[in-house]
Amino acid sequence: MKHYQFLVKEFTRLHHFDHLSAITGWDAAAMMPENGNQARANAMAELSLLTHGILVNPALKEAFEQVDQASLSSEQRASLREMKATWQAENCLPADLVEKKSLAGAKCEHAWRTQRKEADWAGFAENLKPVLDLTREEAELRSRATGLSKYDSLLDLYEPGMNTVKLDEIFNQVKSWLPELTRAVIEKQTSKSLVTPQGPFSEASQKDLGLDVMELLAFDFSRGRLDVSSHPFCGGVPEDVRITTRYSEDDFTQSLMGIIHETGHAKYEQGLPKDWLHLPVGAARSMGIHESQSLFMEMQVARSKAFLGYIHPKIQSHLGKSEGMDLANLETLYHWVKADYIRVDADEVTYPAHVILRYEIERDLVEGVIEVDDIPALWNQKMQAYLGISTQDELTDGCMQDIHWTDGSFGYFPSYTLGAMYAAQFMASIRKKMDVDALIAKGDLAPIQAWLEQNIWSQASFYSTDELVQRATGESLNPEYFREHLIARYLTD
Amino acid sequence: MKHYQFLVKEFTRLHHFDHLSAITGWDAAAMMPENGNQARANAMAELSLLTHGILVNPALKEAFEQVDQASLSSEQRASLREMKATWQAENCLPADLVEKKSLAGAKCEHAWRTQRKEADWAGFAENLKPVLDLTREEAELRSRATGLSKYDSLLDLYEPGMNTVKLDEIFNQVKSWLPELTRAVIEKQTSKSLVTPQGPFSEASQKDLGLDVMELLAFDFSRGRLDVSSHPFCGGVPEDVRITTRYSEDDFTQSLMGIIHETGHAKYEQGLPKDWLHLPVGAARSMGIHESQSLFMEMQVARSKAFLGYIHPKIQSHLGKSEGMDLANLETLYHWVKADYIRVDADEVTYPAHVILRYEIERDLVEGVIEVDDIPALWNQKMQAYLGISTQDELTDGCMQDIHWTDGSFGYFPSYTLGAMYAAQFMASIRKKMDVDALIAKGDLAPIQAWLEQNIWSQASFYSTDELVQRATGESLNPEYFREHLIARYLTD
Repeated sequence: MKHYQFLVKEFTRLHHFDHLSAITGWDAAAMMPENGNQARANAMAELSLLTHGILVNPALKEAFEQVDQASLSSEQRASLREMKATWQAENCLPADLVEKKSLAGAKCEHAWRTQRKEADWAGFAENLKPVLDLTREEAELRSRATGLSKYDSLLDLYEPGMNTVKLDEIFNQVKSWLPELTRAVIEKQTSKSLVTPQGPFSEASQKDLGLDVMELLAFDFSRGRLDVSSHPFCGGVPEDVRITTRYSEDDFTQSLMGIIHETGHAKYEQGLPKDWLHLPVGAARSMGIHESQSLFMEMQVARSKAFLGYIHPKIQSHLGKSEGMDLANLETLYHWVKADYIRVDADEVTYPAHVILRYEIERDLVEGVIEVDDIPALWNQKMQAYLGISTQDELTDGCMQDIHWTDGSFGYFPSYTLGAMYAAQFMASIRKKMDVDALIAKGDLAPIQAWLEQNIWSQASFYSTDELVQRATGESLNPEYFREHLIARYLTD
Repeated sequence: MKHYQFLVKEFTRLHHFDHLSAITGWDAAAMMPENGNQARANAMAELSLLTHGILVNPALKEAFEQVDQASLSSEQRASLREMKATWQAENCLPADLVEKKSLAGAKCEHAWRTQRKEADWAGFAENLKPVLDLTREEAELRSRATGLSKYDSLLDLYEPGMNTVKLDEIFNQVKSWLPELTRAVIEKQTSKSLVTPQGPFSEASQKDLGLDVMELLAFDFSRGRLDVSSHPFCGGVPEDVRITTRYSEDDFTQSLMGIIHETGHAKYEQGLPKDWLHLPVGAARSMGIHESQSLFMEMQVARSKAFLGYIHPKIQSHLGKSEGMDLANLETLYHWVKADYIRVDADEVTYPAHVILRYEIERDLVEGVIEVDDIPALWNQKMQAYLGISTQDELTDGCMQDIHWTDGSFGYFPSYTLGAMYAAQFMASIRKKMDVDALIAKGDLAPIQAWLEQNIWSQASFYSTDELVQRATGESLNPEYFREHLIARYLTD
């Protein structure tokens, strides 16, 4: 037991330092003034170096080697497995690479916040190149340690157990039916007319509506906040979850669903088992499962006719009853499908195309098949091929729209579409247990959230992703549920 | 040089960790939801333990012993002296005491935020006792290491070079003329009538006025922010200064001067020499000098007739022209003297009485002469003796009003009145160089701030407090300037 206890002590220290990193990271995105960046980047790089140092301490290696599995409970064995995974992921990288990547990423991300607005590709590329170079170095070292391909070794950080072979299979399957399905949805949609509600919708009233809906979704405000950042995210720590959104006074529809989406992430964090938060096994299972919780709340729950019907009076009470604010039009609006530029604003039908495009580019960037300078042309080419739109002269809303690559988070994008598929599969299981639409229609989300809490949130990382999904739904990931969901929502009535 | 370079490397690491502590500390006061407290306290205690560990590393002791002073420039020698002072202050305490005090302080402070409102003395005392016990342990150890008395050893952390003997002399001197001066001011004041401007003054318009005035005082918003907390403070780091205030919609006058006060602190931080921010010598000289900068901006500049005249149109444009908002009444209001409960709201004439009361209580608490349970009665007794008012049934605005003791910052209070005296002395020097009132009357603060930047801000901790004051004004601290300032403002016209 003493080796296990030593590991617990060290990982608890890491948990405390990760708390500081999470809060100051949130601050950097949501609060920090522009010229605070350099000092913050230096401080965060120092912290990365410290946590790296804790994980590469030879005493940990020894403890992992000597720990007696037989003396551990099944929970402790799962905890050990997750500590070891964290340890292994860190031990293939030298300290100076960690620090260099952290500094280059912070610099690139910070500058991107203004470069994106100015469509300054040259300036952005200059910062992104060192980030990619360092990412390739990282992938090379991870690949050697894990035996995975370079890109798979990064993917494994976000979606353990997933790889390019499985992804290509899934994405090729999606490619086989998505274009036809999209065409059919848009064709069916031509019979409908859509009115765009006219703003301005004040930031304050959008925020009040958002807070109301967070309350309905049982977000615990004694352990979290809602703020503003240029790229919405869910940050902070499970004991204090910080979600952000961005408001446009012309259009309330994005911030409303954005807040619901991040609240889905937040509910997962707030529902993790309190006794295990200090250890890796108490953390969320994977980025794909995380995204399944945000997309469950946004796509499966909030965009349903039942939910829109329930919150419609709240929407009108905060934002008024001008033209287009009637329920029928809002339903049309929230089910509208359109090939467009921005991933985060995309509907759930075209979203997978955005992800597949990014997956293919980042995979080839990491594998060294293409270079940073190739991105704008490839982006344009793939946007035309998958969604039929050109980004020839578009950078801000083209290949400069996402934050992910700026700090070197290559390998993250596939999680979004895996999340959509998990969410559809979870909802299909819940529908077998209860009348979901009737519950949502009366604003009673408790039974649905109880299923999520029992099957997903409280399970943290005790099981592999595949085991988690099997235990919850009786089968492994099956993309068919996602297709059925799209058909039911967009092609049936 | 290699020993000096090693010390620089280690203190630079400390600087990075202090950055994280400052930002998460600000967050805890200005942003954090209630139930985030325990996890935050644990994380910050871990950080304290880490920085403590860096400072007690035997390699530092060795480097201090072996460093060759002759090889250093005069700036490096000053830097070495300040590193050594930091090192010595930390090396008399064992790690577990540091952690225990940090945890007990965070718990006490957090609970105080609600206990104060509820006047829950019993609950507060229960948390304060362990904080005092740990502070006494700390003082005992510091006393042994420094040869100072227990209280002086804590005072030395905030105001190096100051001690109880000097303080008693200064405060006894103040006691010899302050009651009579206060009586004379209040007597003279009876001929005036004061109209209290009627709110509500919206929080948003008070904030806008505050931001305008911060702009006038040349606060650099690219390196700082203004937010809200229950106890106003200036936090963050010199590269990113976070000031806070609190708003009452009934009364704009406190938030306006509160913002100016904190901006005075912030200007000092923002004016510290950029090349030295990573080392102790680049930090502010002492709490008394820090307070001199906030009080200079608030008392010497902002409450002058010239300044009030200059900002009066801004006040009216943000807050309206209702009764009492005329310049003559605002002057009367900002020069009004009244014995009252709250230290932070006190006028500059009665303020020293608040400080002397706290100084006497905290000195006796630390020395073990009195106990936590004695505080309410002593508070009442001294408030009656010094200011003629009873706090018999008053806790919220009595002995529970201040944040300082909650986290164990005993020894801090004297800095406030020392600061007021330094500020008066600095202004007397500046008046010899330029027509201060004429400059302020046209809103041109640049020459005055240039004097502060040259003589105080840019000097950081290169000289002792006494040397700094001598170099700036030609003499050591002379409380007579403070008395002359009070007479000029309140008894002359």
